[in-house]
Amino acid sequence: MLRERVDIALGERSYPIFIGPGLLADGALLAANITARDVLIVTNETVAPLYLDVFVDALRESLAGRHAASVVLPDGESHKTLDSLQLIVDALVESRMNRDAAVIALGGGVVGDMAGFAAACYQRGIDYVQVPTTLLAQVDSSVGGKTAVNHPKAKNMIGAFHQPRCVIADTATLATLPEREYRAGLAEVVKYGFVHDTDFLGWLEQRADALLARDEEAVIHAIRRSCEIKAEVVGIDEREQGLRAILNFGHTFGHAIETATGYGTWLHGEAVAAGMVVATDLSQRLGWISAADRDRVGELLKRFGLPIAAPRIGTDRAAQLMGMDKKVLGGKLRLVLLRKLGQADVVGDYSKQALDATLQTHFG
Amino acid sequence: MLRERVDIALGERSYPIFIGPGLLADGALLAANITARDVLIVTNETVAPLYLDVFVDALRESLAGRHAASVVLPDGESHKTLDSLQLIVDALVESRMNRDAAVIALGGGVVGDMAGFAAACYQRGIDYVQVPTTLLAQVDSSVGGKTAVNHPKAKNMIGAFHQPRCVIADTATLATLPEREYRAGLAEVVKYGFVHDTDFLGWLEQRADALLARDEEAVIHAIRRSCEIKAEVVGIDEREQGLRAILNFGHTFGHAIETATGYGTWLHGEAVAAGMVVATDLSQRLGWISAADRDRVGELLKRFGLPIAAPRIGTDRAAQLMGMDKKVLGGKLRLVLLRKLGQADVVGDYSKQALDATLQTHFG
Repeated sequence: MLRERVDIALGERSYPIFIGPGLLADGALLAANITARDVLIVTNETVAPLYLDVFVDALRESLAGRHAASVVLPDGESHKTLDSLQLIVDALVESRMNRDAAVIALGGGVVGDMAGFAAACYQRGIDYVQVPTTLLAQVDSSVGGKTAVNHPKAKNMIGAFHQPRCVIADTATLATLPEREYRAGLAEVVKYGFVHDTDFLGWLEQRADALLARDEEAVIHAIRRSCEIKAEVVGIDEREQGLRAILNFGHTFGHAIETATGYGTWLHGEAVAAGMVVATDLSQRLGWISAADRDRVGELLKRFGLPIAAPRIGTDRAAQLMGMDKKVLGGKLRLVLLRKLGQADVVGDYSKQALDATLQTHFG
Repeated sequence: MLRERVDIALGERSYPIFIGPGLLADGALLAANITARDVLIVTNETVAPLYLDVFVDALRESLAGRHAASVVLPDGESHKTLDSLQLIVDALVESRMNRDAAVIALGGGVVGDMAGFAAACYQRGIDYVQVPTTLLAQVDSSVGGKTAVNHPKAKNMIGAFHQPRCVIADTATLATLPEREYRAGLAEVVKYGFVHDTDFLGWLEQRADALLARDEEAVIHAIRRSCEIKAEVVGIDEREQGLRAILNFGHTFGHAIETATGYGTWLHGEAVAAGMVVATDLSQRLGWISAADRDRVGELLKRFGLPIAAPRIGTDRAAQLMGMDKKVLGGKLRLVLLRKLGQADVVGDYSKQALDATLQTHFG
C-alpha cells in the first residue's frame, strides 16, 4: 500500500504528515500518533455519516478506555464563525475535557480551521490532530498551524498560530469528494508550482488527466509534493513574518471575491484560482513574467475546470475588500506577485497604475 | 515623583512594567513605549468617563497623526464573554486596523483579559499594551500574558498566552477605586507573600494600615514587590507547565465560589481570599503548616476586610466545579497548597479524606 510521510520541522513543535489510502481506519497508526486519552472529534454533517464511525472504531481499537466524544457542526464556510467556536467549546466543557485532552478535526478546511482554533484557545491551548478529508485540506489548510474563524466582514480575521500534533491525510476519503470540491483543491496544488517549483508545475501539466481521474499514485504524489513545499516554507517562516506569505498567492484577490459574493458562493479554491489569474496578470503588466507564462497559468487552471474570470464586483469594492486583508502593513497594500514563474514574492514596489488597470480589467 | 520599573524577562517577549502616579497622562512615557501608529483603546463604561480623554490626549500629544479609536464595553465579570470579544473585533475591523496596529487595555482585570485575548486572536495576533486601573490588575492580571474570556460554566476557559508590549500602572487611578475593589486587589498582593516570600508577608503585616489608607509609598512598594515576584515566576514558567501554577493559590476553590454564585457576585479577589483560607486549612490538616501559620493567613486577610468564610454551596457542587478547573490533569485534581508558609507547591499527593473533610468544613 502506498504510504508517504512528510515532516514539518519546527523544533519542539515538529510533526509528521501521513499520506495514503485507508489511514483513518488504521488503528495502529492512530494509537501511535494520537496519544491523548480523552479526545473530542470535531466534524460536520456531511463527513460524519461517511467517516465518523469507522474513525472512532479505529481509534478505540488499540486503546481501550479512551474517551472519545464528538460534535457535528453544520457544513460550509458560512458556519466558520465564533458561534461555531462556542459550540465546540461547549462540547469540550460538557465532556469535562482538560488540558491533557486533544481535539481531532475530521473534515475539510472549515472543520480544521475551527477545531484548530478551538484547541488553540480552550484552556489557553490544548493539542489537536488534523484528519483532513478534502484535497484542499490535505494539501494546504491542515498543514502549518494556521487556525481561524471568519468575521462577517473579513475572512480568517480571528485566529491563532497553533500547530497540530500530526496530520493524517487519508486519500481514500477523496473518493467521496464532489467533483467541484476536488477541483477547488487542485487550485491550491497548482499554486505550489506557480510560486515555488516549476518542475512540479511541469509534472502537473503532464499528469493533469491522471489527477482529474483521481489516479491514486498521481494524487498521492501531488499531495506529498504540496506538503513538502509547504513544510519547507513554514519551516523557514512559521508565523508569516515574510516568506510564508507567498503561499497566499491569489488569496488577496480571492478573499475579496469570497467576501463580496458571500462566504460559500465561491469555493475557496475557486476564488483562489480566479485570484491567481488576477495576480499573474498584474505580474505580467509589470513586466516580471512573459505573456506566455501568464497564459500558462490560466491554461492549467482552465484544464482543471477552475474559474479564471473573477466576478464583476466593481473596482472600488474589490480595492476596499483587499484593504482589509491581513497583508496590509502600515497602510500600504502588499501583494504576492510572480517575480518569475515558479518564484513568488511579497511586494509593495508595484505601480499603482498597473494595479488599478488590473482591477479594472478583472473586477470593473 | 516616585516611579518604579520592573522587567519581565522572556527573551524576545520581554517587557517593562512602569509603576507610579500620573503615568497614563505622561505623553513622553507613552510615546516611548506605545509605538504602534494605530491603536484601539478598549475600556469600560466606568473607566471611560474618568480616564479615557486624558489618556487619549496624552497619547496624541507626542505623536501627531496617530489614529486612536476606542470601544467602551459594559462593566463587570458577567460581560467577559465571546460576545464582548466580538465587539472588540468589530471595532478593530471597522477602524480597519491591521497587523501593525495595537490594542490598549485601559481598565481592570476584565478589560485587560478581554482586550489581551482580542489582540491574541485578531489577525492571529497583534500587539497590546496594558494600562491597568485597578489594584488587582496592577499586581496580577495585567502582568504575565494570560488572556481569556469566560465560558458560562467555567471561568477563563477560552483564552491565550499573549504577552503585552508593556504595562503602565498608574497608581493615581487607585484614588477612584471603590473600597471593596481595592481590598479585593489586596488579596492578590498578600497571596505573593503566602506563596513565595515571608519577608514580604512580614512587611504587609507591618504596613497593613498604610496600605488600607492607600499611602502612596506603601502602595507603590506593594505593587512593585508583587510584580517582581510574578516576573520571577513567569520568567521561569511562562506557559504554566509547573511553577507558575503556584500563583493560582486559592484560585481553584475561588473559581468554584465565583462560578457557583454567578460571576460578579463575589469579586475575584474576594473569592480568592476565601479560597486561600480553604487551601491553607487543607495544608494544615495535612500537617504541612502549623495552626499558628494557618491563623496568620486568615488574620491578615481579615485585617484587609476580606471574606474568610466560603459560601455554603455544598460539598458536591464545590467538588464538581473544581473538577472543571484547568489544573486537573489526567483526571486527577492537583491543588496548590502550602508546603510551608511562604512556599506553595502544586501537589497531587494529598489524602482524599483530608480534602473531603476540608470541603465539608467550608462548603458543606
